[in-house]
Amino acid sequence: MQGTVGELGEFGLIRELTARLPLTPAVELGPGDDAAVVKAPDGRVVATTDVLIEGRHFRRDWSTAYDVGRKSAAQNLADVAAMGAVPTAILLGLVAPADLPTTWATELMDGLRDECQVAGATVVGGDVVRGDTITLAITALGDLQGRAPVVRSGAQVGDVVAVTGWLGWSAAGLTVLSRGFRSPRAFVEAHRRPEPPYHAGPAGADLGATSMVDVSDGLVADLGHVAKASGVDIDLRAADFDVPAQMADIGQAVGVDPLVWVLSGGEDHAIAATFPSTVQLPARWRVVGEVVRTASAARGGQVTVDGAPWDRVGGWDHFASE
Amino acid sequence: MQGTVGELGEFGLIRELTARLPLTPAVELGPGDDAAVVKAPDGRVVATTDVLIEGRHFRRDWSTAYDVGRKSAAQNLADVAAMGAVPTAILLGLVAPADLPTTWATELMDGLRDECQVAGATVVGGDVVRGDTITLAITALGDLQGRAPVVRSGAQVGDVVAVTGWLGWSAAGLTVLSRGFRSPRAFVEAHRRPEPPYHAGPAGADLGATSMVDVSDGLVADLGHVAKASGVDIDLRAADFDVPAQMADIGQAVGVDPLVWVLSGGEDHAIAATFPSTVQLPARWRVVGEVVRTASAARGGQVTVDGAPWDRVGGWDHFASE
Repeated sequence: MQGTVGELGEFGLIRELTARLPLTPAVELGPGDDAAVVKAPDGRVVATTDVLIEGRHFRRDWSTAYDVGRKSAAQNLADVAAMGAVPTAILLGLVAPADLPTTWATELMDGLRDECQVAGATVVGGDVVRGDTITLAITALGDLQGRAPVVRSGAQVGDVVAVTGWLGWSAAGLTVLSRGFRSPRAFVEAHRRPEPPYHAGPAGADLGATSMVDVSDGLVADLGHVAKASGVDIDLRAADFDVPAQMADIGQAVGVDPLVWVLSGGEDHAIAATFPSTVQLPARWRVVGEVVRTASAARGGQVTVDGAPWDRVGGWDHFASE
Repeated sequence: MQGTVGELGEFGLIRELTARLPLTPAVELGPGDDAAVVKAPDGRVVATTDVLIEGRHFRRDWSTAYDVGRKSAAQNLADVAAMGAVPTAILLGLVAPADLPTTWATELMDGLRDECQVAGATVVGGDVVRGDTITLAITALGDLQGRAPVVRSGAQVGDVVAVTGWLGWSAAGLTVLSRGFRSPRAFVEAHRRPEPPYHAGPAGADLGATSMVDVSDGLVADLGHVAKASGVDIDLRAADFDVPAQMADIGQAVGVDPLVWVLSGGEDHAIAATFPSTVQLPARWRVVGEVVRTASAARGGQVTVDGAPWDRVGGWDHFASE
């Protein structure tokens, strides 16, 4: 295996990358042909694409290639889960500078592969091209197993709002890293490698979720999309969120209210959903608010916290100035 | 609609782009949720991803945004067709500089949409992020309609090699453009906007193709992949290719043997396939060679022209030096 992807060449790199991939029963035809063939037993396929760019979505000095692979797979697989589907496959488009060490690319692929394995999916294909900036384009596919997709527009007045997974851990880790620290380890790790609750997507659908969303831009921002699409408002109760003592301690140390991380931090890929208030939710779902009749002239979309607007660091707009 | 994508913002841009998209019967859920839902009646889905970068795969001074959209959709949809499948959907990952005119992005989307329409597909989702270099990551999906996928590894000794679609037109157009000319128009247009024979993919599968490939890197290079995967060699007959008089004229004018464009030029997205010699091929397929027992110690992969090695400008390696 040669030192850089430029020395190895396109086909050599593809060979190195695809050699690392196991095939799962969902894959009828893996990498190496014009296209892959993935089973879609439901007769429908769930599909989503995200793009990640070095310097904007990850930094090589903060995250290993392996962690970038885990994280970039996770954020796409979480989108599939949040529809109520089981992830089956991902495809990778990789832009790599010619001087990128080959090991960076192979470790990236190891991370993609291992995160896929957690979610029950596999990497089935992709493309590599040369360019100045490392860029990953990940497409994830999934199978609904007969379920109706759980969309953003189904929230009903009177529903409870519940969350599962981690909230605020990645944002706390990012704050720590951006101030030059490498610990506490649990938060830094959460930033480098989120752990979306993949199982909760299909399970939430089976429990009767009326709407569901992957929390990638921050809970308030993502619930805002749900509220807007559903023509409702949402009110959250600050006291019902879990702020671990260690998170509160870091918050105090760096002068940040940890509730900002919990309510406005994305990238943990928690799942938020609305359920009829009659549904008995298992303990892994935490009820944190409710769906209320909209008071806004804009016909829904407002998310309040304890009845008041939440305006402390909104969601993430990829084109906003940095 | 504001002037640049930076002024418009991420969500504004997504609104502008998705407003341009029709939905087709294959789309159960289009853009705007965590993921799209596309019908896959066959119970399997064909999936492929390609990445295109400004300056490497397209130039804004040579191609309009609309043409870039047509071309980038075409090359992915052609990969789906070359498996024997009918394209159903594409997803777009777009990296855009903040100063990119919004009209460039919307015209790109118009091109994607219109090329999808030719192939019977639609744009169902995607992602936009900010970055320095315009980059498109396109994922295409397709449905096999009950067919076995036609892979690269099925060519048999004694099969005929046949092609359908255009060969060499895009390469001739690129030569013309790179020398500063804008005509002959037919070749320049072919470079800007290839016309893959989408219908020929499923039709070729139904005719009994033993292997099939989208010609993207050049016919000899792509048939080399087929030969290698099948453990055979392939011999082409130069006299059996169609070199239009106008192409011969340009070749003479610029000092290039047009057969180089036909045999080594990619990007027209013709389809090449092998068929048992007993198959009666419709006129749209041109028989140009045959599959022969391999003479090479490397167990197949050699493509000869009239029995001799073809070494004039090989396939395209995306990491080779420019």
